[in-house]
Amino acid sequence: MAEEVTFLNFWASPSAMRCRIALAEKGVNYECKEENLRHKSPLLLEMNPVHKKVPVLIHNGKPVCESLNIVQYIDEAWTDESPLLPSDPYQRAQARFWSDFVDNKVFEMGAKVWETKGDEQETAKKNFRECLTLLEGELGDKPYFGGEAFGFLDVNLIPFYCWFHASESCKHFRIEADCPKLISWAKRCMEKESVSMSLPDLNEYALHIKKFFGID
Amino acid sequence: MAEEVTFLNFWASPSAMRCRIALAEKGVNYECKEENLRHKSPLLLEMNPVHKKVPVLIHNGKPVCESLNIVQYIDEAWTDESPLLPSDPYQRAQARFWSDFVDNKVFEMGAKVWETKGDEQETAKKNFRECLTLLEGELGDKPYFGGEAFGFLDVNLIPFYCWFHASESCKHFRIEADCPKLISWAKRCMEKESVSMSLPDLNEYALHIKKFFGID
Repeated sequence: MAEEVTFLNFWASPSAMRCRIALAEKGVNYECKEENLRHKSPLLLEMNPVHKKVPVLIHNGKPVCESLNIVQYIDEAWTDESPLLPSDPYQRAQARFWSDFVDNKVFEMGAKVWETKGDEQETAKKNFRECLTLLEGELGDKPYFGGEAFGFLDVNLIPFYCWFHASESCKHFRIEADCPKLISWAKRCMEKESVSMSLPDLNEYALHIKKFFGID
Repeated sequence: MAEEVTFLNFWASPSAMRCRIALAEKGVNYECKEENLRHKSPLLLEMNPVHKKVPVLIHNGKPVCESLNIVQYIDEAWTDESPLLPSDPYQRAQARFWSDFVDNKVFEMGAKVWETKGDEQETAKKNFRECLTLLEGELGDKPYFGGEAFGFLDVNLIPFYCWFHASESCKHFRIEADCPKLISWAKRCMEKESVSMSLPDLNEYALHIKKFFGID
């Protein structure tokens, strides 16, 4: 049977970006359908009735939802190229643990930096910086979180480089001074075609996020 | 090398219960250390420095944190008995999707039923009931969420039977009337030794949860 793969996307969603990177790493051909989040398509509502959110991967008619789950599914459904999770159970557990940390803490703390002002924003920046410092510690001196090869946690974290860049360009704060290894890692990832083709133009993204959070 | 397995536990934590069930399913011998959550042990703070929470599984000196991650690790580290996740990638993705749903929605909505009063509590009950109805739909007429065999989602959801029972006994609301298949499933799971030995006495738990949320 020919594979039918459709991806329900929103260009600025970091969750969608990580799935596009995983699909590119595996060399999967797919149809990408851009969603209008103010007028969600009947297909999105049918394929993700529980959360009604992008991203959704539809593989031979069957939907997979929630981005970490989608990336893991992609890794398990297309096994010929670029394994994302390592084979060792403990290393797999570590990659999943830190990916959950990205989803919960980095996302939450990063959003607060944009949503708040004044003292509250200073606290949010401190918390966000602490998250990134923990990740920098986990990276250590490895080229990628996955070691020598770009892997699961790399795929799941790199979309947030858009946020880092937007934070710097909007003069919220400079991340590179605190987390130089993390920024070197991000630039190394951006040299990969699977990443650069899946992330939006960083300046365009910074304008989008300023508009989204109502920042002049 | 002899296996050294230590589990940092809190008896009333549904997250800890699911790990104990998984260890029992696999027949793993381990040392169970009960934590006092008001005075966390130095071992807990050392082994889970990011979240500082139970449960933690320490396998040959190396910690695994976050309960869904622990259950998956147990499944991948002890492969001889009782596979919890199916082998088919799509079915694996479904089991993970619904387990995330339990962790996020069921936990959040269930806690709100206990934390609120009056109209707010009625809304919380409605939302909690909707979550359970979705799960009942996913169960369908199968004996277990995993099909014929007790599996990943069964392990992750069954600890919440303590909550269902406490809700009923505290006369918050009756779940069985709305979700008879789910309650039949729960009773079926409770017949398994791995489950019954890992869950606390249901009446004792109901008293604990009433005290915890300050309900007379």
